[in-house]
Parts: sequence; structure tokens; C-alpha cells
Amino acid sequence: MFKLYGFPVSNYYNMVKLALLHKGLAFEEIIMRPSQEQDYLSKSPMGKIPCLQTPDGFISETNVILDFLDEAYPDKALLPKEHFARAKVRELSKSIELYVELVARQLYRGIFFGETLSEELKIKVRPELEKGVAALKCLLQFSPYAAGAQLTQADLMLYYTANLADMVAKRAYGIDLATEVEGLRDWQQMMDNNPLVQQVNRDRDQALKSLAG
Amino acid sequence: MFKLYGFPVSNYYNMVKLALLHKGLAFEEIIMRPSQEQDYLSKSPMGKIPCLQTPDGFISETNVILDFLDEAYPDKALLPKEHFARAKVRELSKSIELYVELVARQLYRGIFFGETLSEELKIKVRPELEKGVAALKCLLQFSPYAAGAQLTQADLMLYYTANLADMVAKRAYGIDLATEVEGLRDWQQMMDNNPLVQQVNRDRDQALKSLAG
Repeated sequence: MFKLYGFPVSNYYNMVKLALLHKGLAFEEIIMRPSQEQDYLSKSPMGKIPCLQTPDGFISETNVILDFLDEAYPDKALLPKEHFARAKVRELSKSIELYVELVARQLYRGIFFGETLSEELKIKVRPELEKGVAALKCLLQFSPYAAGAQLTQADLMLYYTANLADMVAKRAYGIDLATEVEGLRDWQQMMDNNPLVQQVNRDRDQALKSLAG
Repeated sequence: MFKLYGFPVSNYYNMVKLALLHKGLAFEEIIMRPSQEQDYLSKSPMGKIPCLQTPDGFISETNVILDFLDEAYPDKALLPKEHFARAKVRELSKSIELYVELVARQLYRGIFFGETLSEELKIKVRPELEKGVAALKCLLQFSPYAAGAQLTQADLMLYYTANLADMVAKRAYGIDLATEVEGLRDWQQMMDNNPLVQQVNRDRDQALKSLAG
């Protein structure tokens, strides 16, 4: 059985959790925060979550775990079969992570954790975020899924990125991503209706409530 | 035939070029710099190089192109066959890109292009670079290749990252990466002796000479 290290408030943790549920693979959740303890670094070299324990050893990095799950358990695939189509899914997934999530993340402390948000940082991040969103618009299909007719890794990556990026864009710049990115709102509603997404979100909301507790 | 967009001074361009040469795939080099022209953005949504034109369309992002080439042309594989081993190669490749290359890159303007390097930036980057290098040390095998017995994507990624990261570490902090990372120097010499690496480097050095010219 797999063990999934992390906690259900993390958007990356929830991407992998959703993939495991989608594929019907049994897993145990080992609830923990990112950690720089030597023991955890031997599992996840940057101390990040999620990290997946497999019978062969540990794997960190969400997209790497998602690729592993799809290659090792091809049923209920989250990648298309055809080579070029797989590449386009991975290109979209990586663009979501590097050019939207990691960009928006620079403002999380100010937006979500009450730290002072400097005007300088806001001014630096805005064109980066706009460039990233423009790149996504070149790649997104919403037909009906993010990369085409099939639910893929890119949907998982986008679903748990768009909510945070949207809050950042709204609060920092008054930009509504759902207006900027045609098709995003309908796609989000479709994903919201997925029972496994609802299960992951219930766990997340419960964990958020405990945190606020 | 493939078309590879980019220019031979780019480390990422050279990773893909080396993969194409290694696999013996025919390709034409379309020499260009990163570009924000609308026509190029329709090929490579962030305007980055390299970008690979395939019979089915364009693919950007180096690791995505490398995965595509390996899945579509499994001969002379740059990924192991076994699922877990493939994941560990991808985890290493991604860690090289995100936690060393993208970190060191913050200092390129100061180190390579003569711009002023602020003490503030140097102080910010140093612990990030040390953390990234420590993560690589958890994953690197050098037995004799970066991820084990076989030449993989991770060797290509590391080879064209380590030279730049090493210069950054030396000039900014007086740190010698080859001393920090056991096995790095021998591995670099092994890679330097690869005739295809030598071919890629000759083109790079020629291009650098033209730039300086």
C-alpha cells in the first residue's frame, strides 16, 4: 500500500491524493507539514510535501509522482496514449506550476497569512502573472477538460492552482481570472461536481477548520 | 524531420540537441533567441527556447521534450524501463532545474553580463543554492551516471547546469561545487569525453566566439 506524506491543506498534496483516488489505489495518509528534519530529507530531498512512499522507495515532486502513477497503473489514465498529446499535457501541467502557481505563491504570505504585502513585490509579480496566464490561454482546451476530451494530470494541477491564483489576482490586482480565461468557470463547475474532488475538498475544509480552530 | 528552435549558447537548447544526437534523430536547427513575438508565442507559449517542431505540432519545455523523445523513440533510451527508476530520474532532473539552475540563474546578469550584483541578492540566493545542492546530493548516484548505470535525461540536465552553477558558486561565494559534490568532477570528465557532448560544445563555443566577435 502507498503512503502519502503531507497534509490536506496543501494544493500539491491534494493533486496527488485526487490521482490516487481516481485510480482507486489504496493509500494511507501520513499527515505532516513540510520539514527540514534529516529523516524526512532522506525521503523528500527538499523537505517538501507531498512525498509518496512506494514499495520501492520514496518519490517527491507532484508531477513526477503523477507520471509514476500513470506509468505504473495505466488504468484510469491521467495521460493520453498518443505521444504528442502526452507531451502537450505535460507542457500545460508544467506551465501551470512554474508560470502561474510559483509566481502567485510569491504573494501568499501577504494575501493569506496577514504579512505586509509590499507595493514593490506586487508591481514585480503582476507582469509575471499576466505572462503566465497568457501562456496558459495558448494551451488550455476546455473541451471539456483542460487538455482535451479526457481528464488528465493538467486538470488536477489546474484545479488546485486556479483557486489560489484567482484569490491572489483578485485581492492584489482586482483581476478576475474567470473573466480573463474563457471557459475557466464552466470547467471549474464541472470539476466541483466530481465526487472525488468533493471528497478531497471536504478533507481540506475540515483541516482548514481545525487550523482556524 | 524535427526542427529545433533556439541557439547553441543556451544550456537548455543544448540538452535537447544532445538528446536528438544521442538518439540519432534527424533535425534542423532554427537559430533564434527567446522571443515575445506573437508568431513565436503560438509555438512556445512563454517565448522560451528550446521549442521542438514535430510532425504533430510544437512542444516547449526541455524536460517535456526529453520525455516526448524517449516515449516516441525508445531506442537509445534516456530513461530506465522500470517505473520507480524512471520516477527517480525525473525527480533528479526536476530538482536540478528548479532548485539549482533557476536559483543560480538569479545571479547570471551580475556574473555573466556585467550588471551590478547586489549584496542583498547574493545573501538571498546563497541559502537557496546550498539547499538545492544538498537536495541533489541526496539523489545523485554517479555510478557512473547521474542516476545510475545508464546515461539519462538527468545527465543532460546536470551537465549543462553544473558548468553555469559552478561559475556562479565560485564567483559569488568562492564555493567549488566539485569539492562540495563528491563524484562530480570525475563524472564531468566522463561526460566531456563523450563525442556527442564534444560536438554540442564545439557549436556552443563557436557561437560564443561569434557573440564576442
